[in-house]
Amino acid sequence: MFNIKLLISYLGTPFLGWQKTNMGPSIEATLESALEKILRHPVTLQAASRTDAGVHAEGQVVNFQAHCPVDPRRLKHSLNGLLPKEISVLEVVAVPKAFHPTLDSLKKEYWYHVCTGFSQLPFYRNASWHFPFALNHEAMQRAASDLLGTHDFSAFCNERALWDRDPVCTLERIELTPLPQDRLRISFVGDHFLYRMARNLAGTLAYIGSGKLDPSCIPSLLKNKDRTLAGMTAPAHGLTLKHVFYS
Amino acid sequence: MFNIKLLISYLGTPFLGWQKTNMGPSIEATLESALEKILRHPVTLQAASRTDAGVHAEGQVVNFQAHCPVDPRRLKHSLNGLLPKEISVLEVVAVPKAFHPTLDSLKKEYWYHVCTGFSQLPFYRNASWHFPFALNHEAMQRAASDLLGTHDFSAFCNERALWDRDPVCTLERIELTPLPQDRLRISFVGDHFLYRMARNLAGTLAYIGSGKLDPSCIPSLLKNKDRTLAGMTAPAHGLTLKHVFYS
Repeated sequence: MFNIKLLISYLGTPFLGWQKTNMGPSIEATLESALEKILRHPVTLQAASRTDAGVHAEGQVVNFQAHCPVDPRRLKHSLNGLLPKEISVLEVVAVPKAFHPTLDSLKKEYWYHVCTGFSQLPFYRNASWHFPFALNHEAMQRAASDLLGTHDFSAFCNERALWDRDPVCTLERIELTPLPQDRLRISFVGDHFLYRMARNLAGTLAYIGSGKLDPSCIPSLLKNKDRTLAGMTAPAHGLTLKHVFYS
Repeated sequence: MFNIKLLISYLGTPFLGWQKTNMGPSIEATLESALEKILRHPVTLQAASRTDAGVHAEGQVVNFQAHCPVDPRRLKHSLNGLLPKEISVLEVVAVPKAFHPTLDSLKKEYWYHVCTGFSQLPFYRNASWHFPFALNHEAMQRAASDLLGTHDFSAFCNERALWDRDPVCTLERIELTPLPQDRLRISFVGDHFLYRMARNLAGTLAYIGSGKLDPSCIPSLLKNKDRTLAGMTAPAHGLTLKHVFYS
């Protein structure tokens, strides 16, 4: 068996998320069937992040076991030829047997894009949330600094999923970057993220920025662990898995 | 009659270009029918630039004559409600009777995006040309500076169209801006552009950057006026009408 790691990017719009489902197309099933066509043996994929329906990825990391050695350059070429244009393979690397994309990941970076203008430019509609309110960046910055560090993030988790071993996460960095044309990028770097946590953080920060929640609410939200007191779950299409960090 | 100016943005992907055609959807026909639904009288549109099929716009300027005064804020709201997500109205303004979006325009700015990486990120596939060759920016810069100024641009015009009064144009600025993820933006500012001129300039610069044409070829291309000696017409989906300038 040869452990092969792929770095992939996808536009989440036409998929029902990473994970295979019999309801419609998933990134996992699409990639798996392309790999099986090339390698002519069954393939099982593991991904660093099981992105939701509509969520995009710029640097998703996945792996699988090949039955025979593969030429990385050729496999990348063949995959990009077979896959739909919404999925792109950026890197193929043979890795040590023990490598596991989820368990070995040290931290992940997510980007959330918000468009606050009255009219959203059509270019961004698949990849940013149209939330047409003036956002107070100072208030958001203050709340963001309260979120940094190690906390129980239950208040930012929609029904804890089975794979969430632990509601305690460490957020290392939250950055607000104003972009041209009334857009704002909120980037999150953390060791792990609970179910919908990045979207709940983005929704809560947007609520704080638009005055629907007080900038000082974070410590009590974290303490009360009550999801219903935090902001809304921001829409999936604003979220992009930017990068997965390994040692 | 009330002369109304609209600033609009669109993703050209699903349209057969600005101009009405009975072959399929056009931006002109889509916008016209939305306006007629709201105003309840026939509407004729004029646009600053008749963009080709697949070409995008961030700042297209159009006008029409309304039979009665309109509330700009309300009209903008109604239009954005009626129009498909690929077209967005950014501004509605009542302008003097004499205003004409094409004849009054002083200059226009076009952006051309090229992605030179081996794999193109799926996010950019509708709005940048995947040309996977290393580009020599210095060579392109040299050629660009030869293009600046007032010249007969017949060598960069595909079959001169009826509305091109004059093959002599003035290019005021050409800028190369490297962007993250192996992308390059080429911006062109000029007083007017011949049929497919922006795309022919982009294709020629890409050919020069990748070594298919010599960086010193521009003066003789301009002199010979022979379209067949210049580079290819770069694909429509890499081009965006960025801005139309008025006095």
